[in-house]
Amino acid sequence: MIKKQHLLFLLWGILSLTAYAQKPNPAAVKAVTAILYEQQAAWNAGDISSFMEGYWQSDRLVFMGSQGPTFGYENVKQRYEKNYATKALMGRLQFTVIDVQQHSPIVVQMLGKFELERSGGNASGYFSLLWRKTDEGWKIVSDHTSASNQN
Amino acid sequence: MIKKQHLLFLLWGILSLTAYAQKPNPAAVKAVTAILYEQQAAWNAGDISSFMEGYWQSDRLVFMGSQGPTFGYENVKQRYEKNYATKALMGRLQFTVIDVQQHSPIVVQMLGKFELERSGGNASGYFSLLWRKTDEGWKIVSDHTSASNQN
Repeated sequence: MIKKQHLLFLLWGILSLTAYAQKPNPAAVKAVTAILYEQQAAWNAGDISSFMEGYWQSDRLVFMGSQGPTFGYENVKQRYEKNYATKALMGRLQFTVIDVQQHSPIVVQMLGKFELERSGGNASGYFSLLWRKTDEGWKIVSDHTSASNQN
Repeated sequence: MIKKQHLLFLLWGILSLTAYAQKPNPAAVKAVTAILYEQQAAWNAGDISSFMEGYWQSDRLVFMGSQGPTFGYENVKQRYEKNYATKALMGRLQFTVIDVQQHSPIVVQMLGKFELERSGGNASGYFSLLWRKTDEGWKIVSDHTSASNQN
């Protein structure tokens, strides 16, 4: 039976959840930042499979690039494998975190800059990552990356 | 006094909230889509102030463009006013919604395409918008827009 007390408790729960918005939880920030730098290390080791572990293994994962969205973990992985087929094309990646905002206990957005040092030409630009806490831990569910220059 | 029943009820509340993830609520999708098309109409009327009503009026608002992030409502507004100083530069805007995902009852992400028809040269590209339900209704809290061509 549902009592008024129960509903009040539920309301309190909802309110404390929504209050999360804006105040990033230090543990969440630490967790997503650690995964990002694990991705960077995997990339610089030429290991796209390990790099991909940061992403949500779901058909709903989306990578937004300059030519539009790519949906699904496998398609995103194939896109990386195709565009960065050799270690020389992968180059040396450096991520810089610019800002982290938390929008719910399980939703964090991270803004950052990427720099790719390559013998064939450097690249750099910005990314907006949406992270969600899943059963497998924090995962990137959406990645919008845009290049600011290619020189 | 906190009873076990209360905690179970709270847990149920939290679980039902997290279950929101992925299944977009039709009312939320309708609300954010309506605001997007109000923005389109405002833009095409040359009215940047009304266009800005879709954005979160906060210092934490962020617009990510090809040159990096712009933080704060006023700065984002000034960026638009500077880059689109005349009706000719604003051109005719057409938004197309590609995908909407809901990550919490108050957090929705929308992916889409923009097309700008201008006498001085068309532009088009893609955007990832993060919407949050605030006391003033659904607002864009983060906008990553990247051009795919400028011709």
